[in-house]
Amino acid sequence: MQPWETLDEEEVFAARPFLRVVRQRVRLPDGAEIDDFYQVKLRSFGMVIPVQEDGRVRMLEQYKHGPGRAGLSFPAGFIDPGEAPDVGAARELMEETGLAPDRLIKLGCYVDNGNQRGCEGHYFLGLGCREVAAPDDGDLEEMRQVVLTVAEVDAALKAGQFNVSHDVAGWGQARVLYPEVFGA
Amino acid sequence: MQPWETLDEEEVFAARPFLRVVRQRVRLPDGAEIDDFYQVKLRSFGMVIPVQEDGRVRMLEQYKHGPGRAGLSFPAGFIDPGEAPDVGAARELMEETGLAPDRLIKLGCYVDNGNQRGCEGHYFLGLGCREVAAPDDGDLEEMRQVVLTVAEVDAALKAGQFNVSHDVAGWGQARVLYPEVFGA
Repeated sequence: MQPWETLDEEEVFAARPFLRVVRQRVRLPDGAEIDDFYQVKLRSFGMVIPVQEDGRVRMLEQYKHGPGRAGLSFPAGFIDPGEAPDVGAARELMEETGLAPDRLIKLGCYVDNGNQRGCEGHYFLGLGCREVAAPDDGDLEEMRQVVLTVAEVDAALKAGQFNVSHDVAGWGQARVLYPEVFGA
Repeated sequence: MQPWETLDEEEVFAARPFLRVVRQRVRLPDGAEIDDFYQVKLRSFGMVIPVQEDGRVRMLEQYKHGPGRAGLSFPAGFIDPGEAPDVGAARELMEETGLAPDRLIKLGCYVDNGNQRGCEGHYFLGLGCREVAAPDDGDLEEMRQVVLTVAEVDAALKAGQFNVSHDVAGWGQARVLYPEVFGA
């Protein structure tokens, strides 16, 4: 499984700090060259699946303009330049929910899209989360705090109340990798 | 949870058929207006989590240029214009693996990104998959067929062999919503 070689890269659109698009000229392992392979560069984010001390899960209900409708999501936000992913994820958790985790466990890091990349997401599991402040997010969206049992989160996923693949990926990782936390 | 209102939309970059970027002027529920909210429009895809008749799961090992490394993924590909998502997902499954499912069950539909949208992904669970043809994908990437037990897929996820949030979301949905298939 040899990697492709990037021979050249040109920025073809930019709207900083939101997004950039670059066009790459790439060489495949068989020697073939493609002169218009596009990569979309979005800011990295950190997400926390926050489990409270009582075992219930904190989520947010909010309208998001990407899907164009309201739904359930986990606390998440952009990582600041130079900020470590776990620090950024914990900061966003605090800003959006007022929760501080007793333990923050790294789940994984994934890009949005196999071809066009998009953003890089850093996923964490927050255990023993306690409310230490009032939420103060400064986000554009109004949001509502929601506290759900594990079975209720599963039911919400099944009922189509998730809208964004990040939230599905976050919950899926946590559920699959930590059966001792979420039950089997 | 009122939706935002899109007042105006202008295409600011296009590289058809791969991607388009539009700049929207939007009005928030509190009346505030934002004149530079960007949406990235990528082609919709269909993905199948294919479970063979023997209960094992088919995956693909391939290099993908988005993450820039090789890893494990599920069969997936772009849905053709006018094609139904389940038809496109089954077609891609056949092209990439030669598998035909006995039953194709809809899992969910999600956008990549809460803010910038990206592509829309249609996720399916394929049960009773049988090999009825040789793979004939025509994709740019060389790929290797991989057959794994459920525990081996979980272990691969834990070991960082997934690179793209779509694959994590696909596996997570299937595992959480169908414990009768995958075990608890």
